[in-house]
Amino acid sequence: MTENLRVAVIGAGRMGIDHIQRLHRRIHGAKVAAVVDIDQDRARAAVADVPGAIALTDGQAALDHPDVNAVLIATPGFLHEEILHAALEKDIPILCEKPLTPDADSAWRVVQAEEKLGRQRIQVGFMRRYDAEYAQLGELIRSGELGELLVLHHQHRNPNTPPGFTNEMLINDSVVHEFDAVRFFTGEEITSVQVRLGKPTRNAPAGQHDPQHVLLETSSGVLADVEIYVNAQYGYEVATQASFEQGVVSIGNDSGPYVRTQGRWGGKVTPGFVERFAAAYDVEIQAWVDAALEGRIGGPSAWDGYATAACCEAGVEAQKTGAKVPVRLNEKPALYS
Amino acid sequence: MTENLRVAVIGAGRMGIDHIQRLHRRIHGAKVAAVVDIDQDRARAAVADVPGAIALTDGQAALDHPDVNAVLIATPGFLHEEILHAALEKDIPILCEKPLTPDADSAWRVVQAEEKLGRQRIQVGFMRRYDAEYAQLGELIRSGELGELLVLHHQHRNPNTPPGFTNEMLINDSVVHEFDAVRFFTGEEITSVQVRLGKPTRNAPAGQHDPQHVLLETSSGVLADVEIYVNAQYGYEVATQASFEQGVVSIGNDSGPYVRTQGRWGGKVTPGFVERFAAAYDVEIQAWVDAALEGRIGGPSAWDGYATAACCEAGVEAQKTGAKVPVRLNEKPALYS
Amino acid sequence: MTENLRVAVIGAGRMGIDHIQRLHRRIHGAKVAAVVDIDQDRARAAVADVPGAIALTDGQAALDHPDVNAVLIATPGFLHEEILHAALEKDIPILCEKPLTPDADSAWRVVQAEEKLGRQRIQVGFMRRYDAEYAQLGELIRSGELGELLVLHHQHRNPNTPPGFTNEMLINDSVVHEFDAVRFFTGEEITSVQVRLGKPTRNAPAGQHDPQHVLLETSSGVLADVEIYVNAQYGYEVATQASFEQGVVSIGNDSGPYVRTQGRWGGKVTPGFVERFAAAYDVEIQAWVDAALEGRIGGPSAWDGYATAACCEAGVEAQKTGAKVPVRLNEKPALYS
Amino acid sequence: MTENLRVAVIGAGRMGIDHIQRLHRRIHGAKVAAVVDIDQDRARAAVADVPGAIALTDGQAALDHPDVNAVLIATPGFLHEEILHAALEKDIPILCEKPLTPDADSAWRVVQAEEKLGRQRIQVGFMRRYDAEYAQLGELIRSGELGELLVLHHQHRNPNTPPGFTNEMLINDSVVHEFDAVRFFTGEEITSVQVRLGKPTRNAPAGQHDPQHVLLETSSGVLADVEIYVNAQYGYEVATQASFEQGVVSIGNDSGPYVRTQGRWGGKVTPGFVERFAAAYDVEIQAWVDAALEGRIGGPSAWDGYATAACCEAGVEAQKTGAKVPVRLNEKPALYS
Repeated sequence: MTENLRVAVIGAGRMGIDHIQRLHRRIHGAKVAAVVDIDQDRARAAVADVPGAIALTDGQAALDHPDVNAVLIATPGFLHEEILHAALEKDIPILCEKPLTPDADSAWRVVQAEEKLGRQRIQVGFMRRYDAEYAQLGELIRSGELGELLVLHHQHRNPNTPPGFTNEMLINDSVVHEFDAVRFFTGEEITSVQVRLGKPTRNAPAGQHDPQHVLLETSSGVLADVEIYVNAQYGYEVATQASFEQGVVSIGNDSGPYVRTQGRWGGKVTPGFVERFAAAYDVEIQAWVDAALEGRIGGPSAWDGYATAACCEAGVEAQKTGAKVPVRLNEKPALYS
Repeated sequence: MTENLRVAVIGAGRMGIDHIQRLHRRIHGAKVAAVVDIDQDRARAAVADVPGAIALTDGQAALDHPDVNAVLIATPGFLHEEILHAALEKDIPILCEKPLTPDADSAWRVVQAEEKLGRQRIQVGFMRRYDAEYAQLGELIRSGELGELLVLHHQHRNPNTPPGFTNEMLINDSVVHEFDAVRFFTGEEITSVQVRLGKPTRNAPAGQHDPQHVLLETSSGVLADVEIYVNAQYGYEVATQASFEQGVVSIGNDSGPYVRTQGRWGGKVTPGFVERFAAAYDVEIQAWVDAALEGRIGGPSAWDGYATAACCEAGVEAQKTGAKVPVRLNEKPALYS
Repeated sequence: MTENLRVAVIGAGRMGIDHIQRLHRRIHGAKVAAVVDIDQDRARAAVADVPGAIALTDGQAALDHPDVNAVLIATPGFLHEEILHAALEKDIPILCEKPLTPDADSAWRVVQAEEKLGRQRIQVGFMRRYDAEYAQLGELIRSGELGELLVLHHQHRNPNTPPGFTNEMLINDSVVHEFDAVRFFTGEEITSVQVRLGKPTRNAPAGQHDPQHVLLETSSGVLADVEIYVNAQYGYEVATQASFEQGVVSIGNDSGPYVRTQGRWGGKVTPGFVERFAAAYDVEIQAWVDAALEGRIGGPSAWDGYATAACCEAGVEAQKTGAKVPVRLNEKPALYS
Repeated sequence: MTENLRVAVIGAGRMGIDHIQRLHRRIHGAKVAAVVDIDQDRARAAVADVPGAIALTDGQAALDHPDVNAVLIATPGFLHEEILHAALEKDIPILCEKPLTPDADSAWRVVQAEEKLGRQRIQVGFMRRYDAEYAQLGELIRSGELGELLVLHHQHRNPNTPPGFTNEMLINDSVVHEFDAVRFFTGEEITSVQVRLGKPTRNAPAGQHDPQHVLLETSSGVLADVEIYVNAQYGYEVATQASFEQGVVSIGNDSGPYVRTQGRWGGKVTPGFVERFAAAYDVEIQAWVDAALEGRIGGPSAWDGYATAACCEAGVEAQKTGAKVPVRLNEKPALYS
């Protein structure tokens, strides 16, 4: 392949801008060739300090541009399917921010298109896999050092939610990370989802029930649960406690400078996911670039995107019924085995 | 009342011996007057280094003895009901190790007997309420400083279980502490119990399913859960994480000397409940003695014993069915309000 | 000996009141027989809720009283020598709050008087030895598990100082605890003291230089130092870090409930020594009572009081000169070996 | 300037290799143009997987090569002076691993050469300044949020030392980092150094006295000290505790996954400086590249290199005499103000 990845970034919102700056300033072996946003001003602003990058309003135009040989998709999820199929047509490296697509059917169509292409081109942006502690816990599980993994308890807290954040988004945009994490840690598919709704905080917007307690099971029977709490006020927190046959491991604990002042000891809570996972994003994008330059993907596949979409569908149904809802998956194509 | 409590300790097993030594060596305002055990040798051994205490094999004889003016019951739970009624007859201060009795019906009969007596004489040995961190979390919840309490997550781990420890005992002897804790923290009754059984450890004895995930709800909808894991190998652990509208509080974290050696940092895990709650037991017994000398009880009441017995019954049923089982309670007598 | 210690508490100031309540409410095997204070009202107030205890203004009268068979000295240090000699005359158990006496010469006279008596009657109130973590670190050092102890780093911080707290008191009342701690941990005598005065806080009262850095050496060459900082504002802290040939151990780290709220994680700093060492005081006094009832002492001896007094003298001189000042000790009498 | 930095790396030892891989795989805006090592095989091996980089044995040849427009010096310190002068002649960006040179006189000659050149070209590799916690503590000090900084306590531990590591190297190669750190945190020069030698570990090689206690003062009187312990066995540790007028801040505490198993809680100690400061090295080199592309330096200057060399000289003298040795500095040239 060519010496450098020349990336078209689709979507110049918060995540898009973040990735543009990352590619432009910190990632080795890649450059931003184009930025696409339906809002032309936004696209132009995004390339203002990126010499050599062009601003476009049409994704297909970017894919067709001779300077572009890779694509990073950072638009809202409902816009993913079209550009994914178009990029697969071009047979170029694709990094698609999660979700792959917003529902299992459309995700399955993407999987089928990639299967037809015959090689994996799509990497999905589940960046937590690149967090140092996630990686270490994953290795520890696979090593068998502490015996079999039995229980996975997750806390997922946001200080608050953007306007219009619905109960469905609480599953599709937030818990989706734990769906992937459970699959990553166990190497198994999730078989059922149940949701408990209890006493809500008064800090949630109207129509949103927060916190929620999401109960998962995997194919071997690992009991996983997620305390999702998206108006937790005090800050951002993503933590996991894994119980094994011979021990317990916690990740996501607070760190940083330790201060004693005014009668209290402690430190600062991470304010948001950008700060919490900044290093993970860098590692993720570098892994994608390094792999893409060798014609591979370097992380979660389209199948991972499809399987988590199926979990989300079950989760949203479970939220409404309170019952344990099975997760239905098509058979896994050989391409992903 | 007389200047000192002269206590008959019923039962000279592990807990009994522990309380005998505590009363004899550390508690102010009380002495051990008698020790009762059906095994006469065990009773005699227990008083060997307790000058002035007599060894008996019959509980009624101890209650009738003129030197005895209070009773501490430390026999297995199925033996509690008879001695409780006999002690209520004597109208003397009673500290009854948990459980009050092994089922809700017998516990209700004890409640009714005490109600008939017309004053609270029975204190139940839920010692966790006397743990410094439990007390502090309780105060914090009642203060409203962090808003409303929404979620209570509990970890309860034992290194292993004694021979013959059944699934029912896992609820009745272990989770019973969290039933009381949830009631203590929330000041509410528990309304339902559900139990999840997942992948079991290979370290559990035959017939015992371990770990289990117990889901509780309280009357205001607080979502509580308990990861009970009684063959956790690595040590003893009792921890709680409480999520509020404006923050999160954890208790039961590791402490003690912090060592770095051989490539690792950390400290020693508490080996068992005796070490973990030694100070709480001292505080509990001193609180009972101090209150008894003033004609009161100084802790959990017979009603608390009854209500947790009802939770245990629901828990054992939930364990078998997997369904959410409601907790049924009689109306609370005015004596306990 | 008689069944109970009947203690005359000399001095009804802050520490005296604290010990009176401890003996009256929590300690097994002892009662408060008399309280002595030159301020009669203070003495009376101190016994108001202690049935059977009498209020006196004269220490000798208390020692002569037939109800008294032990003495706890909690007056300021400059008043200790006289009552110590009088109590040794009576040959009764003595618990003397630190310092034994304010200087090495007077402390040596007390040691000689006790040596003449021929048995150890005096226990000095270095209560840190009874703190659970101090005890554990002491055991770890003696075990040799981590090889030889090489370095002892101490932090000693108070939120602020009472009026009239001088530079000398900073050594004699504060660092004296570390002098004893270093001797306790190493089992060796301190051979020299040096004091560094750097940039002072603006929160210290006029005439007081704070913080100070105190450098100690022991007979085998262990390098110890103390960061003494008595106007640290944020709370009370007593911590030690011990470096061994094969590891490092820290004690005195923060614990208690762990809170995340308002963007920060952590907990509350202990406000003062009473809260920090409350349990240690209870253990200390119980150890004294238990040992006294058997005719022994249960803790630091008059020799320990003398040796730390000699360290304090060297420390105060070092504070003035900046030079390394040797600690001069008389030969240790056989009674203390 | 040109679009990319084309770096000649001088020295293909451990640090050189590390920087070559960093520049080749992770740093944006730079590439490895040449690697120089007197051992030709080593130079060739170092460029084997770096397409486009040439292997040389002569530093001047590299500087003269048209593909080279920047230099990173990673040879032993005694070889630095010659290549520094040669690179200043070329007026190109220079990153020089610490020490700038091994003694104050040669460092001063480098400072004078750069002053004559008239602009700062030399950045010295004190990478700790780029550690996230160091940076945060530095900001906190400068903010004045906790009042004035009064005391800086440092622990610096290595598991063991390479063969031939002398007492002088313990100052020049190890404590030199704290000399820079104290200067970085306080923004002041160090005015004196004293060294205490106590009980040594039996794990040090012959002729090396370990641990040592290094006492520093700054121009405003901040008391700093360093516990340097280079055969600490258990792992690598670099920690600082800063005491302010209104609080205390600690950095360098253990973090990472928290494990409970086999009766103990805790995690893994960082094995060495590469793991501890890997992220800091990346940030440092990226900062150098970004600044160099704009014609600036992005970190510690030649003056910093000179001033720490003067501290090292005083430290080595202090080690031999035990006395407090003043640090002598020439007047600071205007170029560095």
